[in-house]
Amino acid sequence: MDIKSFILKGSVQLSGKDGRSLVAVDQRFLPFRETFFEISTPEDAFYAIREMVIRGAPLIGVTAAFGMYLALSENPRNEQDGLIQAAEVLNSSRPTAVNLFGATARMLAAFNPDRSLEENRECLFREACRIMEEETESCRKIGEFGLPLIEEIWERKKPAPVQMLTHCNAGWLATVKYGTATAPIYLAHEKGIPLHVWVDETRPRNQGARLTAYELGLAGIPHSVIPDNAGGHLMQHGMVDLVVTGSDRTTLNGDVANKIGTYLKALAAFDNHVPFYVALPSSSIDFAMEDGIRNIPVEERSPEEVVYVEGWTGTETRSVRILPENSGVRNFGFDVTPARLITGLITERGICPATKDGIIGLFGDWKDGKME
Amino acid sequence: MDIKSFILKGSVQLSGKDGRSLVAVDQRFLPFRETFFEISTPEDAFYAIREMVIRGAPLIGVTAAFGMYLALSENPRNEQDGLIQAAEVLNSSRPTAVNLFGATARMLAAFNPDRSLEENRECLFREACRIMEEETESCRKIGEFGLPLIEEIWERKKPAPVQMLTHCNAGWLATVKYGTATAPIYLAHEKGIPLHVWVDETRPRNQGARLTAYELGLAGIPHSVIPDNAGGHLMQHGMVDLVVTGSDRTTLNGDVANKIGTYLKALAAFDNHVPFYVALPSSSIDFAMEDGIRNIPVEERSPEEVVYVEGWTGTETRSVRILPENSGVRNFGFDVTPARLITGLITERGICPATKDGIIGLFGDWKDGKME
Repeated sequence: MDIKSFILKGSVQLSGKDGRSLVAVDQRFLPFRETFFEISTPEDAFYAIREMVIRGAPLIGVTAAFGMYLALSENPRNEQDGLIQAAEVLNSSRPTAVNLFGATARMLAAFNPDRSLEENRECLFREACRIMEEETESCRKIGEFGLPLIEEIWERKKPAPVQMLTHCNAGWLATVKYGTATAPIYLAHEKGIPLHVWVDETRPRNQGARLTAYELGLAGIPHSVIPDNAGGHLMQHGMVDLVVTGSDRTTLNGDVANKIGTYLKALAAFDNHVPFYVALPSSSIDFAMEDGIRNIPVEERSPEEVVYVEGWTGTETRSVRILPENSGVRNFGFDVTPARLITGLITERGICPATKDGIIGLFGDWKDGKME
Repeated sequence: MDIKSFILKGSVQLSGKDGRSLVAVDQRFLPFRETFFEISTPEDAFYAIREMVIRGAPLIGVTAAFGMYLALSENPRNEQDGLIQAAEVLNSSRPTAVNLFGATARMLAAFNPDRSLEENRECLFREACRIMEEETESCRKIGEFGLPLIEEIWERKKPAPVQMLTHCNAGWLATVKYGTATAPIYLAHEKGIPLHVWVDETRPRNQGARLTAYELGLAGIPHSVIPDNAGGHLMQHGMVDLVVTGSDRTTLNGDVANKIGTYLKALAAFDNHVPFYVALPSSSIDFAMEDGIRNIPVEERSPEEVVYVEGWTGTETRSVRILPENSGVRNFGFDVTPARLITGLITERGICPATKDGIIGLFGDWKDGKME
């Protein structure tokens, strides 16, 4: 299997002898080693999410959905209890992404104890596929709604290329296809608009340097990797026209939990009048939560991610320790960008202000903490 | 020579057969390898500055001063032209630090064509030593003036430790002794005030993770290394009481050029009402320049610093590549923090607002772009 053509079709695909398990690009080794990871048991799904074989809120949701289907496939007794337990385990794999909880809840709701095991399996498989299709469709729509933002800048400054900045990876590899933050970029590139993307390397795991740069390289889009420290300087000197990031969880009032460091870029954008957009499918909106700064639990991850940096020696991937042996370390996975710093949210239904009114304006069918 | 006791006496010391050259801790290999670097020719001084064997504005100035003395020592003809040429070469080693230009200018002024070569050598040696002593004295004073900021916080929140955050390395290793940003920290620690320091790793060269963490570890001060992305989150959640950074160049209006990323931390501090101080000897003030954002030239360094991360494998230091082979890279060494975000400047004459009035209030003997 050629990974490059695989990725152009999506970060995960149906596989297995019955075409009902998943195969994913193993993102832990990109861009140095291009390998695949089979997800054919619920344990595989848990491991893939927890160990970041796959990552990105939308893709976590899809993987968890298939994890639920696989849990039922393994359960010969058609018991709801087993499925509830599987949901609890999967929900514990990453604490910040709301898609995860949304996907397992939808899968639980697709189960009906009055149906036969065979029927339930069929229902859950279809529901998992539906979640995957919806995520793909959402990303495509996000791209279409985001594209005019880039076109407008292009009209204003051509023939100079549009300068974008993004943090972490909210691309194909974080979703099923297109990406969220990258969807407008890919569509603009397809339309022939000259772009250059500043790619935050995104310590500690370097998803920008490793994954976003890899994706943009595959697509032939000019880009420069920069240390996370550089964005403020660039914006201060008019070198960024537009910032677009993804979101792991957006609360109803418009606060955005995303990869640690997003908040700092939002501050710099605000200080320099650079538009700062967040691209997100509604599956990552937490309609039941307001005040994300106070209420979103921020995952604290292993200190090893900070202590060691993994890279390519020329012949192999290797981790090197970058600090003294006895120094303390803390590793917060996310931060929360307050809504007031966000120019707008790009969703699959259009762009709205990062406010409760804005979100309800687009998703007015939301009621009592659930989408109708 | 034991490096730990060496460092406690200073980052550079007089050495050589006549005690008139320098030996420095080679900062390129810390904390993994503890080695020394001899500076006994002007070329050694140039190399040490350019290749960051030594770094930090004050230490760059001291090293350049000795480079000038060494240039005269090598010059048997007692010619001012040769010395002017040496100054030009040294000034080209790093473009941002004003101490560098200040030190070479002072050394040129110490030369008198009417004096004998022997007398000039003596004068230049004494002037270089004076610059070194002044830097040491400035750092001690900065510590004394900064200490009450920490004491005040301690009085308010004891028994909880005072939470500090710093960026890059503005410690012993950036100066001759005490450091600038770290001087108040070391004095507070000596007085028994419980502290914890958040150490930004400071990509791309990781001076925080490598040097500041090393220094604080030697001094037994509790600290945690964090990715540069984390500071905003910490400040948002009340986990930082005080930010202190160093400065490579401060313009007369109070703008501060410092390691890339400093501006982002200043934005986060401002947004969360966390006091943000910059500690600097007046040798790093550029009295002849206003509007640092527009006027300070920001050094662009080798992309290799971003492409490769150096660390310890367990048996050796090794560099690993952290991004795809064909991705572009940019590497800006500094950014400029606008004065409006800075709570105050801690100098060897006291603390002042980051304004022209504030700076002139403390350094009123400044006139026509020169200190009197």
